[in-house]
Amino acid sequence: MSLEFNIEKKLEGTRARAGVIKTRNGEIKTPSFVVVGTKATVKALSPEEVKELGGQVVLANTYHLYLEPGHELVKKAGGLHKFMKWDGPTMTDSGGFQAFSLGAAYGKGISKLLKKPARTTVQSGGDDQPEDTGKQDSPALAKITEDGVSFKSHLDGSEHFFTPEKSIQIQQAIGADIIFSFDECTSPLASHEYQKEALERTHRWTKRSLEEHQKGNTGQALFGIVQGGRFDDLRTQSAEFMAKLPFDGFGIGGSFEKEDIDKAVGLVNDILPEDKPRHLLGIGEPEDLFNGIEQGIDTFDCVAPTRVARNGQLYSRDGKFNILNAKYKDDFSPIDSECGCFTCKNYTRAYLAHLFRAKELYGLRLASIHNLYFIVNLVHSIRDSILDGTFKEYKKEFLTRYDK
Amino acid sequence: MSLEFNIEKKLEGTRARAGVIKTRNGEIKTPSFVVVGTKATVKALSPEEVKELGGQVVLANTYHLYLEPGHELVKKAGGLHKFMKWDGPTMTDSGGFQAFSLGAAYGKGISKLLKKPARTTVQSGGDDQPEDTGKQDSPALAKITEDGVSFKSHLDGSEHFFTPEKSIQIQQAIGADIIFSFDECTSPLASHEYQKEALERTHRWTKRSLEEHQKGNTGQALFGIVQGGRFDDLRTQSAEFMAKLPFDGFGIGGSFEKEDIDKAVGLVNDILPEDKPRHLLGIGEPEDLFNGIEQGIDTFDCVAPTRVARNGQLYSRDGKFNILNAKYKDDFSPIDSECGCFTCKNYTRAYLAHLFRAKELYGLRLASIHNLYFIVNLVHSIRDSILDGTFKEYKKEFLTRYDK
Repeated sequence: MSLEFNIEKKLEGTRARAGVIKTRNGEIKTPSFVVVGTKATVKALSPEEVKELGGQVVLANTYHLYLEPGHELVKKAGGLHKFMKWDGPTMTDSGGFQAFSLGAAYGKGISKLLKKPARTTVQSGGDDQPEDTGKQDSPALAKITEDGVSFKSHLDGSEHFFTPEKSIQIQQAIGADIIFSFDECTSPLASHEYQKEALERTHRWTKRSLEEHQKGNTGQALFGIVQGGRFDDLRTQSAEFMAKLPFDGFGIGGSFEKEDIDKAVGLVNDILPEDKPRHLLGIGEPEDLFNGIEQGIDTFDCVAPTRVARNGQLYSRDGKFNILNAKYKDDFSPIDSECGCFTCKNYTRAYLAHLFRAKELYGLRLASIHNLYFIVNLVHSIRDSILDGTFKEYKKEFLTRYDK
Repeated sequence: MSLEFNIEKKLEGTRARAGVIKTRNGEIKTPSFVVVGTKATVKALSPEEVKELGGQVVLANTYHLYLEPGHELVKKAGGLHKFMKWDGPTMTDSGGFQAFSLGAAYGKGISKLLKKPARTTVQSGGDDQPEDTGKQDSPALAKITEDGVSFKSHLDGSEHFFTPEKSIQIQQAIGADIIFSFDECTSPLASHEYQKEALERTHRWTKRSLEEHQKGNTGQALFGIVQGGRFDDLRTQSAEFMAKLPFDGFGIGGSFEKEDIDKAVGLVNDILPEDKPRHLLGIGEPEDLFNGIEQGIDTFDCVAPTRVARNGQLYSRDGKFNILNAKYKDDFSPIDSECGCFTCKNYTRAYLAHLFRAKELYGLRLASIHNLYFIVNLVHSIRDSILDGTFKEYKKEFLTRYDK
């Protein structure tokens, strides 16, 4: 068995469903937020803490682990689970996104992320410095060929070449339970013409990924990634293409804005087979989670909760706030009085404010625990609301208060 | 009761003893290594981790907490224990050392620490950047008067004035179980003439500390600090002075080299009352711990275990090594195969090497846990060897292997 997916309940009048994904390393109750552990570590946290805060599954980044410490070393260590001591389900992305963004391959002088609206979602980045947008305006060094993509390491400038086969081989060496097919991640600003060309190449790469996977598969599940940018016809074409292939599940890639999630995700999910899980790559803000789930998404991953935590941005039922704001210096209440996380049960905003001002490492941990708990458990609650049929009310109630 | 000290066993032919210090917040089995939590946090660690690794008592730094977040805020938070969620015994130092070293008060152009021998011990610093030696060569800004010492904050250059009374008041606000009298921390290179002058001032400050403490004491124990630099006559004079005052225990301050620990500490401890605990400030290397205990020391504090951990320096039974050394990249053994710490039970050197290369926060935590476990439990083992009379053999066996 590579993967089993059972839908427990579909919510009438929406595409939302609650289910369970069974992997060889345990279950994922869906919808679920996947915790990002870029370099085989969830930044600042122990696996025990990730489990305690409700994390069910960890996603590591193929690009990062390939460069450091190297996938062969991870394999020698006994694979990702053993190396990082996470015994639950794991995923790796295909490495495509980072090769195009962090690696200096994406050289068209345009950003992969829409920078305009502040709330544009963070793509399936990998939770690491430099920020994903860091190198996107660097001079053209890209070589995208039919065979694959060449890129320079963001660490030392060394040259590398990823093909679909190579991506799968690396992911096999790393050994996660769920892996992704290799895709070209296009800019949301790219023209229809370029998107179409890239999409067709991605489809050819997808087939090669699948073939490579089938050759050497030792029990990993493979997800195919639907692309197509912001064009309905391309999204449709891509979903139809993927739906016919024997994947264990699907990823939906590319950049989104709020409207896209409602529209493109629903469009794609109406085409994808209903009985397979769907992962929305790089999405993690509360409103997007509600909308994604409503449109039939089962799992999400996003670096936002931990990344913003390290900048002092904390989630609360009343919205996000920055702990460095002077007013929290002598605020002896928890971050969120309704939160049940380790941080909120033990520490005050004043203590967090002190740790952040003093640049203390423990502050980064406590903030990360809180933010991840908040988002992971928000998705758990959404799951519960699907099961008991109160999704619509819960969504309205939560977002009204959160966005007020 | 501010403090009780019971000696369980004295080791014949040495000054070593094993005992128990009872504070209002629990017991400290001695000899014991005190974990440094400079700014009301043991860098990178949770209180639960400190407890799990065997830590019994945490020492925070008065100077640091006075500047950030401010002692009044700590008081408002319910005191140090509540603020940082450490429910065991706590100590604060007097703030004198940092006012003289980190603060720009020590302006004689000479270093407080002997820099020559690499193994010179790290003084009771406070585990914080900038390193303690950082500002000691800065231009003279000192104003040591009979009343106290003025200094500039290393954080923002603001001016401050510490008197013995102020030091005690700050320590009362912070609320640790054991506090220290205010002293002038002299350079080990200072002349006999200056050391004598400073010592006599320290003695006057000591009396004022004691008086201030007695005025407003709410159950804290006060330790007087013996100074006197590297001069036997001054050490004797200081110990005799302190011995007569009604302190709950004693600190031995100043810089030491290996020989000093054998000589000066023994000299001082023969004069101090035997039935009160003695704390050696800022000492933490294995050999110094053995020697200090042999000369009658009950407790030690030192930033070294956590500070060097953050640079990748790890303790092992076979000596210290740096995890960044290339040979550990694919070493799948634990840091120390005989170590029972969380890090060694769960992770390989290869994983640690990866985390340090990738500058991952979790690496700092794992290294700190290991080093503190190593040192804390070394002192526990020394205690056991006093109780069962095998101290001499244990010392020889341990140091032979460690220094080989």
